[in-house]
Amino acid sequence: MTQTPRAPRALVPWAHVADLMDGWPDELPVAVYDGTGEPPPDLSAVRFYVLPYAKPEATALLARMPALEAVQSLSAGVDKLLPRLPPGVVLCNGRGLHDASVAEHALSLILAVLRDIPHWVRRQDDHRWAPHFTRSLAGSRALLIGYGSIGAAVEARLLPFEVEVVRVARRARPGVHGIGELPGLLPDADIVILTLPQTATTTGLLGAEQLAALPDGALVVNVGRGGTIDTAALLDQTASGRLYAALDVVDPEPLPADHPLWRVPGVLITPHVAGGSATFYPRAERLIAEQLRRFADGRPLLNVVDRA
Amino acid sequence: MTQTPRAPRALVPWAHVADLMDGWPDELPVAVYDGTGEPPPDLSAVRFYVLPYAKPEATALLARMPALEAVQSLSAGVDKLLPRLPPGVVLCNGRGLHDASVAEHALSLILAVLRDIPHWVRRQDDHRWAPHFTRSLAGSRALLIGYGSIGAAVEARLLPFEVEVVRVARRARPGVHGIGELPGLLPDADIVILTLPQTATTTGLLGAEQLAALPDGALVVNVGRGGTIDTAALLDQTASGRLYAALDVVDPEPLPADHPLWRVPGVLITPHVAGGSATFYPRAERLIAEQLRRFADGRPLLNVVDRA
Repeated sequence: MTQTPRAPRALVPWAHVADLMDGWPDELPVAVYDGTGEPPPDLSAVRFYVLPYAKPEATALLARMPALEAVQSLSAGVDKLLPRLPPGVVLCNGRGLHDASVAEHALSLILAVLRDIPHWVRRQDDHRWAPHFTRSLAGSRALLIGYGSIGAAVEARLLPFEVEVVRVARRARPGVHGIGELPGLLPDADIVILTLPQTATTTGLLGAEQLAALPDGALVVNVGRGGTIDTAALLDQTASGRLYAALDVVDPEPLPADHPLWRVPGVLITPHVAGGSATFYPRAERLIAEQLRRFADGRPLLNVVDRA
Repeated sequence: MTQTPRAPRALVPWAHVADLMDGWPDELPVAVYDGTGEPPPDLSAVRFYVLPYAKPEATALLARMPALEAVQSLSAGVDKLLPRLPPGVVLCNGRGLHDASVAEHALSLILAVLRDIPHWVRRQDDHRWAPHFTRSLAGSRALLIGYGSIGAAVEARLLPFEVEVVRVARRARPGVHGIGELPGLLPDADIVILTLPQTATTTGLLGAEQLAALPDGALVVNVGRGGTIDTAALLDQTASGRLYAALDVVDPEPLPADHPLWRVPGVLITPHVAGGSATFYPRAERLIAEQLRRFADGRPLLNVVDRA
């Protein structure tokens, strides 16, 4: 933790953001708090708070910031943060920061399941060379549910694999199906990829009926929010061996040790790590530097979330 | 096994190639032999033999084919087949059939290592939700050694991941470095991907000196032939934790159960399965149908290997 001599007016998670700015702005004393250890003692003057990434407990400090004007989240989804935010405070999200990282993880999950990487890892642990031929991604039809910046980043990475991408978003638009068209699209999908935030519309979007509409052997991939899939229904359809799944997000999270989903052979689980890989940090630092400059200059912030 | 009434003049591995041809050519009686079970009893009239894929023992039949004129291999690399082939027999290889499959597997290996898929698989087996943030492919520099059709297919799949690709081939040409330039290129490579056949030039290409030239934390990927890397040197550099590796091919193959490479934490091994995934079969069937038509019509075959 670094402290400026005056009571800080901004709190950011990484000291080296200053390097991108040729030092902190004179008019905005900045302190560093990365979400671990002790926060600066006097938060009464903090006007701009950049929440440490993936440290939900850091929101507790909000109650100690009476001068707070703006909060920068480094997550794309702010569903859990919104209800904890004092009225009148501007909220900015981390839209775009995770696109490359999440899309890369989505492809890692898809390729791992289709090319049997979990199987080879376990055979390696047995020291056993026992080849068999696997499925391929090439020639698949992928149904991309959610077509924001992350969905588009997933699509860009899928296309050179000779994949046909069918786009679905909450609102239909040219080239993108509306979510209401899902019943007609699910029966032809080899792979379904969810990149959705959790909202009233998306919660439980893939339930028993939707999963039953998928063809045998289809792969369900979730890198959005766990609650968009009905976990019990997915467990049914994967435990029977009818569907495969690769999940970076689940409901509930963390997945309890005794949850049966851990043990399904056709399910690959990663613990909500899609967004935070190394490529996220330089992008996040550049956004924080830009937002600090804008805030110090009184210019409009980027990525402001409509709280209405 | 299907047999025609007359002694077969062609032997192919899959019966349903006939569907692509509206039946076998009248002038070329075809039998089916997939490399398992009993071959047709009378091979004396076989002029065209399509070797069953990944069944090296099927080359034993060559000695029973006195009328043989042409052999179609479904592999891209024919290094092991060449010395077993009678002089004067035309050899056609499976160039292009594996591009999509091998390139897809290369990406599966790269992403699995960088995004810690083996670690997550083992944590899943422990039912343990324990996130940590991983490395990324984005922002990496990949040195592609071998720039034939497989190398180009790997490149096409890498580019949307925000990867800088540096191409190296046996002969320098515009946009492609010659293999002699490797010493200057290795120190800047985050990932080295080998897609080389095994020849006198490529054997042991990555030895102790070349591996030592790579930066700390670099990832070595081999989807070509195992002998292009010095296994002992790679074991040294990975067991120390300095380098990572993801290998679909190794030397020796199969890797013996007591080989120390199995146990290196930073090494992911798959048992030579890159080329044979589901997407290979329709491509191979189309090639066989085309070659049978050409052979029956006395037209030149495709993919003829220069045996000089």
